[in-house]
Amino acid sequence: MDVISVIRTKRDRGRLSDEQIDWVIDAYTRGAVADEQMAALAMAILLNGMDRAEIARWTAAMIGSGERMDFSGLARPTADKHSTGGVGDKITLPLAPLVAACGAAVPQLSGRGLGHTGGTLDKLESIPGWRAALSNDEMLAVLGDVGAVVCAAGDGLAPADKKLYALRDVTGTVEAIPLIASSIMSKKIAEGTGSLVLDVKVGSGAFMKNLDDARELAATMVGLGTDHGVRTVALLTGMSVPLGLTAGNALEVRESVEVLAGGGPADVVELTLALAREMLDAAGLPDADPGRALADGSAMDVWRRMIRAQGGDPAAELPRARETQTVLAPATGVLTALDAYAVGVAAWRLGAGRARKEDAVQAGAGVELHAKPGDRVTAGRPLLTLHTDTPERFAYAEEALADAVTVSTTPGATPPTPPIILDRLA
Amino acid sequence: MDVISVIRTKRDRGRLSDEQIDWVIDAYTRGAVADEQMAALAMAILLNGMDRAEIARWTAAMIGSGERMDFSGLARPTADKHSTGGVGDKITLPLAPLVAACGAAVPQLSGRGLGHTGGTLDKLESIPGWRAALSNDEMLAVLGDVGAVVCAAGDGLAPADKKLYALRDVTGTVEAIPLIASSIMSKKIAEGTGSLVLDVKVGSGAFMKNLDDARELAATMVGLGTDHGVRTVALLTGMSVPLGLTAGNALEVRESVEVLAGGGPADVVELTLALAREMLDAAGLPDADPGRALADGSAMDVWRRMIRAQGGDPAAELPRARETQTVLAPATGVLTALDAYAVGVAAWRLGAGRARKEDAVQAGAGVELHAKPGDRVTAGRPLLTLHTDTPERFAYAEEALADAVTVSTTPGATPPTPPIILDRLA
Repeated sequence: MDVISVIRTKRDRGRLSDEQIDWVIDAYTRGAVADEQMAALAMAILLNGMDRAEIARWTAAMIGSGERMDFSGLARPTADKHSTGGVGDKITLPLAPLVAACGAAVPQLSGRGLGHTGGTLDKLESIPGWRAALSNDEMLAVLGDVGAVVCAAGDGLAPADKKLYALRDVTGTVEAIPLIASSIMSKKIAEGTGSLVLDVKVGSGAFMKNLDDARELAATMVGLGTDHGVRTVALLTGMSVPLGLTAGNALEVRESVEVLAGGGPADVVELTLALAREMLDAAGLPDADPGRALADGSAMDVWRRMIRAQGGDPAAELPRARETQTVLAPATGVLTALDAYAVGVAAWRLGAGRARKEDAVQAGAGVELHAKPGDRVTAGRPLLTLHTDTPERFAYAEEALADAVTVSTTPGATPPTPPIILDRLA
Repeated sequence: MDVISVIRTKRDRGRLSDEQIDWVIDAYTRGAVADEQMAALAMAILLNGMDRAEIARWTAAMIGSGERMDFSGLARPTADKHSTGGVGDKITLPLAPLVAACGAAVPQLSGRGLGHTGGTLDKLESIPGWRAALSNDEMLAVLGDVGAVVCAAGDGLAPADKKLYALRDVTGTVEAIPLIASSIMSKKIAEGTGSLVLDVKVGSGAFMKNLDDARELAATMVGLGTDHGVRTVALLTGMSVPLGLTAGNALEVRESVEVLAGGGPADVVELTLALAREMLDAAGLPDADPGRALADGSAMDVWRRMIRAQGGDPAAELPRARETQTVLAPATGVLTALDAYAVGVAAWRLGAGRARKEDAVQAGAGVELHAKPGDRVTAGRPLLTLHTDTPERFAYAEEALADAVTVSTTPGATPPTPPIILDRLA
């Protein structure tokens, strides 16, 4: 087996054999295939595709590159969720304790933000004392004790994916459906969850800009999960508008706590409950009532215990940015568009995200929304508040927002609010 | 400018702008763009193509990455030749002294063999004492004094191409017409020749397997040369059968000397004279008579001076392999096929070529042919002789030759000998 023949097969629109896939993933993990060779192969996969059987074998080879976890010793059924990433997507924060409060065990191995989408670990790290890194044993202990845990994936899980993910990030090969699907599913299957709900985002603020691509990605992932014995369901959800009223680390934690307290923005509550019901169904707990667990405070109790178990103080004051600046509504009328991608880039530029993996994020930075599409706004009144510790970034963030806002001045115009849940695949 | 946006442009079937091309070639040469990033871009170029204007700018940027030579101080007009590489292609050896004997100056910056095609420098190094490495000043001195020089290109010429060529070789991105054309032409234009004749090979033993691809490559290169003020002509020539009766380093030098002595195989003589006439025409010497220069020994005189000028002894005995083995004709009849690629691979495996740039070659190894397609052969009589210093390689070479030979036993069948020169572009 040699790497040139593997690259040529895919370059010339052929099918990779099982042996080629097993060999190239193993050789890349060991360092016998170089980064430049895998980059050429990744570009050929992006442009020429892989069929379902190739994607399945590729995923299995990435799972086989590392260790697998085992939750079968837990008393509760496990339920995991994965989002493909969006702007203001803080759903994991209220969702994990909520589903745990309803009787499932929720192991959430999460990532950090890169580019315009935030990362769950970055958000939780804005809570004083909270730490993301747990050993496998610590993770299992928190999961057994609290019922929910959100932490960084250990280095032993799908190391081939870790290496390939970092490579794709710098070689323009992120947007390949076979590689996105196998990357997500290899980690989730190696993690050992019994059931999985996928939140596949569609719209300007998501990787998938249109419904067809999102549906293909979702169907591919549902097939991979099912083939590996993981009960897998996907919701396609809208990401043309930010979720909730905040994008930024501490800002989103604050909004998540509001949801756990029984309040919060309607779209965040709706999506949290919809995903919770899917997770509980998939985990074999169809009679659980997540609405009640939000209302009666039991979800909030799990949140507090979950944060404390990882060294955080759930009662501590959250960091605030040193400076704020408002963006005013440009006209009086109905807000018809507030572009998710633009808001994500603005939050990123204000310091909520990072350009390179080595960069630090600002806990308090981000964008706060005072209206959502469908709401009436008044010319000259605050529409957004920008938060940062580094005020020289305001101009740079405003530039990203230049075309983000549309206000309709037609009297009586009230555009339909776009639905959050667009489709469901199982 | 950032590399991801350049990769994405080509990945998404866009045109690279002049600024993108200039930036990425410069950044890659400086090391600011990594090998894995250029590999992804090269694969995107291979699969999505470049238009004529993009190829022209890419070539200009590679020329601009290094120094340019200047032959304008020479008393004679310069004429260069480039072959895209084939099996038994020793044409440079008789051609360079022949054209010099007719009044042109012939600067031949040549390469080494990689894979199944031989390298001119490897062939000449089988002559005791001959050395390939000359400084630019030494090269100019030999060229002015003898009229012809064959040597390795200096490191200063198109360094971007050197780096990219080595990268393409290990990433399955060699076979991209825009990259092949710009690689060849950037070196030839930077070298500073006034005229250039391209020998574009077509057939199993060549990079281009069919006439359409070869014609596209030839037309691209002729356009690039013309745009840079180099009088450029391309011949498309057959490479489904080895050229001449030998493939291997010292074996081919011996055959070249036969041609310079007025003998040698008919196809080698025909192609050498055709290329010589094109070079002399392009150099503005249409009245020169290369046939006479072969017959009267003046080409042989230049050969001897050229070899001596680089430390070689033209009268020395050439190395011979320690072991030989014959391959017998499988039937009595007319030889209808003797596959160039198979013979090239066999010579390579016998030790005439190298698998990696660091490997050494055997001076005496290779394949000797006792018949060519169109010739009658007799069952059980020698058809090929294999030469090597390492007899354990015989079986490996024979394996490559398994399907190389076809003998027609139909009485009276004499298939037409394929023409050598298939087309001409100017």
